[in-house]
Amino acid sequence: MNRRQAIARFDRPLQLDSGQTLARIDVAYETYGKLNTARDNAVLALHGLTGTQHAAGDDAATGRPGWWDAAIGPGRAIDTDRYFVVAPNALGSHGGSTSAASPDPETGRPYGSRFPVVTIGDSVESQARLADELGIERFHAVAGGCFGGFQAMEWMARHPARVGSAVVISATPRTSAHNTALWSVLRDAIRSDANWNGGDYYDGAPPDAGLGLAAKFGALFWMSREVFEAKFGLRRVAGEDPDYGFAPEFAVEAFLDGVGTNAAGRIDANSLMYLTRAIDYFDMSRGHARLADAFAGFHGPALLVSYTNDWRYPADDMQEIADALAANGTPCRHATLDSPAGHGGFLYDTERLSPLLSDFLANPGAALQAA
Amino acid sequence: MNRRQAIARFDRPLQLDSGQTLARIDVAYETYGKLNTARDNAVLALHGLTGTQHAAGDDAATGRPGWWDAAIGPGRAIDTDRYFVVAPNALGSHGGSTSAASPDPETGRPYGSRFPVVTIGDSVESQARLADELGIERFHAVAGGCFGGFQAMEWMARHPARVGSAVVISATPRTSAHNTALWSVLRDAIRSDANWNGGDYYDGAPPDAGLGLAAKFGALFWMSREVFEAKFGLRRVAGEDPDYGFAPEFAVEAFLDGVGTNAAGRIDANSLMYLTRAIDYFDMSRGHARLADAFAGFHGPALLVSYTNDWRYPADDMQEIADALAANGTPCRHATLDSPAGHGGFLYDTERLSPLLSDFLANPGAALQAA
Repeated sequence: MNRRQAIARFDRPLQLDSGQTLARIDVAYETYGKLNTARDNAVLALHGLTGTQHAAGDDAATGRPGWWDAAIGPGRAIDTDRYFVVAPNALGSHGGSTSAASPDPETGRPYGSRFPVVTIGDSVESQARLADELGIERFHAVAGGCFGGFQAMEWMARHPARVGSAVVISATPRTSAHNTALWSVLRDAIRSDANWNGGDYYDGAPPDAGLGLAAKFGALFWMSREVFEAKFGLRRVAGEDPDYGFAPEFAVEAFLDGVGTNAAGRIDANSLMYLTRAIDYFDMSRGHARLADAFAGFHGPALLVSYTNDWRYPADDMQEIADALAANGTPCRHATLDSPAGHGGFLYDTERLSPLLSDFLANPGAALQAA
Repeated sequence: MNRRQAIARFDRPLQLDSGQTLARIDVAYETYGKLNTARDNAVLALHGLTGTQHAAGDDAATGRPGWWDAAIGPGRAIDTDRYFVVAPNALGSHGGSTSAASPDPETGRPYGSRFPVVTIGDSVESQARLADELGIERFHAVAGGCFGGFQAMEWMARHPARVGSAVVISATPRTSAHNTALWSVLRDAIRSDANWNGGDYYDGAPPDAGLGLAAKFGALFWMSREVFEAKFGLRRVAGEDPDYGFAPEFAVEAFLDGVGTNAAGRIDANSLMYLTRAIDYFDMSRGHARLADAFAGFHGPALLVSYTNDWRYPADDMQEIADALAANGTPCRHATLDSPAGHGGFLYDTERLSPLLSDFLANPGAALQAA
């Protein structure tokens, strides 16, 4: 499917929402498919919290499929025979875009704790530069779930003329206290590591134990209760009788240990720190009298997808976005899908999402009318 | 209300479900009200995971109210002018009953990691000894929520003739994979502490940082999303604009920091380790062809209360218990209450629970017929 990996380098300052400045930025990205001559078939696919620019296909080095491999590929919902998919790595994320692990131009050494807090809007500004570089004035669609959905909304607000249509999945117009609470504890799990050193660990051993704990903690929120029951139930690692000890003896314990171990070397702890903090600050209403005002410039159709079983970003939150768009007269469809996977449904359980997505991309306006 | 604090000491071995033996046990307890001359007005109140025998009234030393102060007291749902409330401390729990912090009779030093895993059934056996000592052959009612509800069910199964009636709140007939996952990560949070030392920390500094992290983690599961939103929303510690840093700046972050700090000195880390492991092993079906068989000996009426908003122990789980009792012809009422507090509803949000409880206790059979 013509996968390409690259890093776009921008040697001019990026002004951040915080008022701070990054002297230069890199944006790592992958593309799938081909940009047509009219340059109007580009789809921007925006990753979630632990994702990267690797959205589709198997990675040659690790063998891991991309985070949205179920949806992106030849003949899939986001058909790479038809669309040119651009998958950028968020600012602050592990994966190659500028982050706490990048060299600070002032010192030549990794930023670590000196890296400024970057917002989701800041990521979108970095992606706008990437779009310029790729010669994409207007995306056919900008799509993402969860953290990727937040990015899609910032695109709708900040660069509405460049968003031909938008797909926002499993998101919310603003981060709630409950979610900030989750992120706060997740960050504390990372900080619990003796190697943490306030985030300045790039010269020594990384805080893998803290990162592992954070990853296990996160798995409790990414997977629904129903998925846990279906996958593991009361299954045991071995034998049928209780061991009456503390060693992992339930299959679910062994699974979580694996989640913790696998995070090491794959995710940079600072990436989770900075991206979760960016989520804490995410609030599309900020600076506006009404949420609708944030989306006032956006006229393209929008597809919003929520999941009945998502207790982090309930369908009511998504409906608030739908209502805001409706208040502006923007064509919008909000579909609530029923998936046992809950919040992570859009990543793997794409059976019901895929037809929605492909119909919308094929003809965004028509798909809305049919709804 | 005639509060009494005591420790019952039993200098004979207790055989545990694991096959191991405790050479002797202590059972710390409080009582409220007076045992009548017929000795038939005793209500056993069983605490949750972080509770102790301090169920009602303000503690003289700490000023803290008991865990079920909203329900136990003169004129309250469990009326101490009428009932003699016995609140024991579970085996393995902090509070004074035999636990990992107790001296191992073999060495005279705290058990620490040598303390055996005790089950919820083992706790019930310790409480049966306490009932003997207090001269209570049969409780008017045995009541508890969550971990306390599990204890109440073990009472119904193991000593059915001593349970005049049962009140089981926010519980499940068996611990699910999702809950075991939660406990597994909570225990890892404790283990992350440099002072943990495998549980043998009684000679040095306690693992307060790990305990604090576990307590914060737990708060995410004890409080519902709705409670977080109602209590904190997007409220900030100071100012109105984002600080774009990592210091606690949202009210919910400051709250969680307090939860972490307050756990130190109040909860023994090993208590959370052993009690959560006891919950992992909790399965009323174990050893039975049907759940109903576990409750075959129990004939007294039962009141089961679930909360619509409890995603840890959904109403369906409670209904499974109700169905099992119904299959035995045991009078039972299952009420599902609507509370934004979700799982922790029975502790604080007692407005709708209290009338149910007081009617049931006043005349268990009649309250069921009226339902």
